[in-house]
Amino acid sequence: MPAAVAPASTAVSNGTSKMSSSTSSSSTAWKQIAAAKQQARLDQIPADWRLPSELLATANHTSGADLRSIPTSCGILSADEVAITATPVAEILAKLQARTWTSEAVTTAFCKRAAIAHQLVNCLTELFFDEAIAAAKEIDRQFAATGKPPGPLAGLPVSLKDNFNLKGKDSNLGFVTWINDPADHDSTLVTLLREQGAVLFCKTATPTAMMIAETVSNANGRTLNPFNTRITPGGSSGGESALLALRGSPLGVGTDIGGSIRIPCSFAGLWGLKPSFGRFPTGKCRSGLAGQEAVLSINGPMCNDADGLEIYAKTVVDTEPWHVDPKCVPIPWTPVSASSLPASLTLLVLTNNGIVTPTPPLQRALTHAVAKLRAAGHTVVEWDASLLASDTELFERGLHFIESFFRAEGGATVHSLMEASGEHEEWVEGLAATDADWGKTVKELWQIQAKRTAWAAELQERMRALVGGGHFDALISPVAAECSTTHDAYHHIFYTGCWNLMDMPGVVFPMANLAVDRQLDRADAQFAPKSENERKVWAQYSADELHGLPVCLQVVGQRLREEKTIAVARKIHADTA
Amino acid sequence: MPAAVAPASTAVSNGTSKMSSSTSSSSTAWKQIAAAKQQARLDQIPADWRLPSELLATANHTSGADLRSIPTSCGILSADEVAITATPVAEILAKLQARTWTSEAVTTAFCKRAAIAHQLVNCLTELFFDEAIAAAKEIDRQFAATGKPPGPLAGLPVSLKDNFNLKGKDSNLGFVTWINDPADHDSTLVTLLREQGAVLFCKTATPTAMMIAETVSNANGRTLNPFNTRITPGGSSGGESALLALRGSPLGVGTDIGGSIRIPCSFAGLWGLKPSFGRFPTGKCRSGLAGQEAVLSINGPMCNDADGLEIYAKTVVDTEPWHVDPKCVPIPWTPVSASSLPASLTLLVLTNNGIVTPTPPLQRALTHAVAKLRAAGHTVVEWDASLLASDTELFERGLHFIESFFRAEGGATVHSLMEASGEHEEWVEGLAATDADWGKTVKELWQIQAKRTAWAAELQERMRALVGGGHFDALISPVAAECSTTHDAYHHIFYTGCWNLMDMPGVVFPMANLAVDRQLDRADAQFAPKSENERKVWAQYSADELHGLPVCLQVVGQRLREEKTIAVARKIHADTA
Repeated sequence: MPAAVAPASTAVSNGTSKMSSSTSSSSTAWKQIAAAKQQARLDQIPADWRLPSELLATANHTSGADLRSIPTSCGILSADEVAITATPVAEILAKLQARTWTSEAVTTAFCKRAAIAHQLVNCLTELFFDEAIAAAKEIDRQFAATGKPPGPLAGLPVSLKDNFNLKGKDSNLGFVTWINDPADHDSTLVTLLREQGAVLFCKTATPTAMMIAETVSNANGRTLNPFNTRITPGGSSGGESALLALRGSPLGVGTDIGGSIRIPCSFAGLWGLKPSFGRFPTGKCRSGLAGQEAVLSINGPMCNDADGLEIYAKTVVDTEPWHVDPKCVPIPWTPVSASSLPASLTLLVLTNNGIVTPTPPLQRALTHAVAKLRAAGHTVVEWDASLLASDTELFERGLHFIESFFRAEGGATVHSLMEASGEHEEWVEGLAATDADWGKTVKELWQIQAKRTAWAAELQERMRALVGGGHFDALISPVAAECSTTHDAYHHIFYTGCWNLMDMPGVVFPMANLAVDRQLDRADAQFAPKSENERKVWAQYSADELHGLPVCLQVVGQRLREEKTIAVARKIHADTA
Repeated sequence: MPAAVAPASTAVSNGTSKMSSSTSSSSTAWKQIAAAKQQARLDQIPADWRLPSELLATANHTSGADLRSIPTSCGILSADEVAITATPVAEILAKLQARTWTSEAVTTAFCKRAAIAHQLVNCLTELFFDEAIAAAKEIDRQFAATGKPPGPLAGLPVSLKDNFNLKGKDSNLGFVTWINDPADHDSTLVTLLREQGAVLFCKTATPTAMMIAETVSNANGRTLNPFNTRITPGGSSGGESALLALRGSPLGVGTDIGGSIRIPCSFAGLWGLKPSFGRFPTGKCRSGLAGQEAVLSINGPMCNDADGLEIYAKTVVDTEPWHVDPKCVPIPWTPVSASSLPASLTLLVLTNNGIVTPTPPLQRALTHAVAKLRAAGHTVVEWDASLLASDTELFERGLHFIESFFRAEGGATVHSLMEASGEHEEWVEGLAATDADWGKTVKELWQIQAKRTAWAAELQERMRALVGGGHFDALISPVAAECSTTHDAYHHIFYTGCWNLMDMPGVVFPMANLAVDRQLDRADAQFAPKSENERKVWAQYSADELHGLPVCLQVVGQRLREEKTIAVARKIHADTA
């Protein structure tokens, strides 16, 4: 059994936990529960979809192997299945609608490839391939009977992050206590996607409480990045990113409260959309910090291409989800075409937030992007917030707010959920234990919320001032200070978290023709970190380790303007190629 | 000096406070501060705008006098000024734009009438008539110079609730400690309204912390209802409602977190719009519970006619306030005309929320409305939530949520603000003192927030089920269980607060040709209250006391559909005449 999918007891003994348990022998019930669940997942995989042990030899967090070729070379997929799973979403839908492909064939292909992916990178929490193939057959039958596809997504397999509830299935969110605790209802989005014809076939791993930017937990073990197993796929939607990077799903849905869609997309070279709150339904999902509303968790699509984001978003919003989820805003989806954008965009480029200087590949990517965008005729304003103390302070203040909100109850919720099973490895730094330093009273929380509201207006005003007092079409920024990191090394979430506080949409895209390069991206030996945060980020950076890994950027748009944000991101992607 | 505008020390000795001070002689500094501020307001009124003592004889909270004729009969206003101040907003704007009237003339007329109103009902906190008239003259000058009105509201006087900050002026919100504490900035809405040409001329009284549905505080004394001085004008925007009922302003802006626009509009026979959060800017205002976000405070227009609401709303949204207030949603104002509505509306009529049965005038109004609306061809579904335990429970649960949110920090904020000046009459029941029964931990607050989110979806689903599983155009409901009440007698806010929790817009309108009638609306002697809440409401009800007072209803629309909600309210107003 590969370490990636080893039971928790093995995973923990791998020495990858931050706090190795010194009492593991005294209380092992929770480890047995986690191990049994992890084994049960593997047992659900049909025998002829199982990888031979030689192909699993490097599927562990220390090998540093690139696993991406295994799904197509292992011989489990037929040539047709290889073709199907390599096809972009729009084309899969076109072929389904033309009845060139059946949903049964498409679904089977992705189930097989997801099963392979799971064996390699430990990305799934719930596998329900039989149900999915049965649902696909039913869609094929309806289509044949009526001559019309039953819904705009009819027959398309869609993977979901673990926090979406499906009746009868666990949503463990990395907590052992939520293993074998099946949901008694479907999430609002689950019902909606099924009504549009989507075929749900698996749920994907999250870290504990979905509050880590990597994907590791006592319940599920560790998820690996298929580009390089020593690298995390990011988090908290890292099960999705790992699955999508192996093309085990055509389209996945993640969630994001501080970067949890964007960071894993960035780490795995994917497109991702973090919308403003209210654009997509969030009802009836499970949360690691239920009821925390000072920063609002949203969900959104993750995909290998931009079309996928747009198809998903249009389909969901066209259902008018505000009739079934009171938190949805009644704004129709109004596609923005490339031709309707101004020929010359006004773009603000955040090259440094003043807290943590982006690592070399991102510096190179930003420099490259600025040059290309200027050459394409856009107005580009570079913003290095490290150059002005008041700008740095603005970002530092925001970071303090988001940390304060996440930790406002001193970790009580996570603590009690861990206590319920007895699990004690503390993956969730600062959240797992009641911590007097972080815990706030409600009055203090209100005071911070009032300050955050003033801060948001201040940041908005500052950004407008930077572009001469007017509007800008988008802000471009790194997704993180790192393109990706080794396991347990991710530190600074404010390149993403800032836009959660602002509730502005963000689209992550992979730079075309630009990857980490061990020569070009060597760290400057003279670089002197100005803070502990920056020191930690730069200490773990290694051009050698990341060589060949994708480099993504983030395009941040105006609040609730997802259509335009996608269109601008597409344009930037093309113009920086 | 009339009791209504007496210094706090006098007001308190009137015996209208809930908790008479037993230590008033020992600590009087705060009373002197309040009295001095109240006297300073009166001193700002020019000598020839002052009412003679005989006209002030009944301007006190015990006389029960109807003061509405005094502004036009007192001789202070010229015939032109009487005409101007009796004119609806749309016509004032038309006459300003045609240069039939100057802004100077219009502003002077309203300043004079507001001064009269203040002497009668104690409705203002800040008077800045000289500045307003100077601003009006400048607008007239610009108009003359350019031939174009400088902004869609050019020259129109607008009154604002006290919590809107104006640089250099107090925003005391009923707290003595905030007297002589002038704002150092303008609220976002203040800047926006001035840019549209509005002439700001006064600010209006609120109760302590804006958290009472009446208008009384140590800082400002008590505001009276001009229909009957023994009746409260409601709250917390009761300074506005009293001023507007005396036509001392053509258009006012109030705020609403649990009914604070709708209740005072209802008590004074006005039109009012409580929008969904984000439609109008809320930035840089003062709050009594700053940073409380579990229920969001909004602001909106109050007026003697529906046109005023629409003109205001369109003007504000047309400025695209989302560029200056990050909390505004970027939804343009798209007017909905009467002719674009379906001929037959689907209307849900909440006749009883199961917690407090509406008092007789409202029962009669609802019965009348249902009959008229059916006769007009609308589909009307009556909903008496007292008939089904699960419906009653749904409303009871919601009431518990909103009370929990307001009191989640156990009154710590209000307590500290009162402590700062030493004031100790406790007007804000349950909010002024740290109360262990109410105070919550952040974890508990999160848990309640999560339950509220589930509740909102449940209520939405229940309402859809009541109309057969589809959509409804609006819900009609009482604004409160009472049309209005005597002072210190208001009890039950959930006919309004429910829609704050749901963030659904509400329009209050006065029933045409229907007022409280001492014969028709006599209380049923057999009525047996089923709860303490209901007992309190019904114990204070008196058809004799309320005879002749207006009866208003509330039209609740879909979230962020203010345009349609106004259009539907207009239609219901017409069809129930």
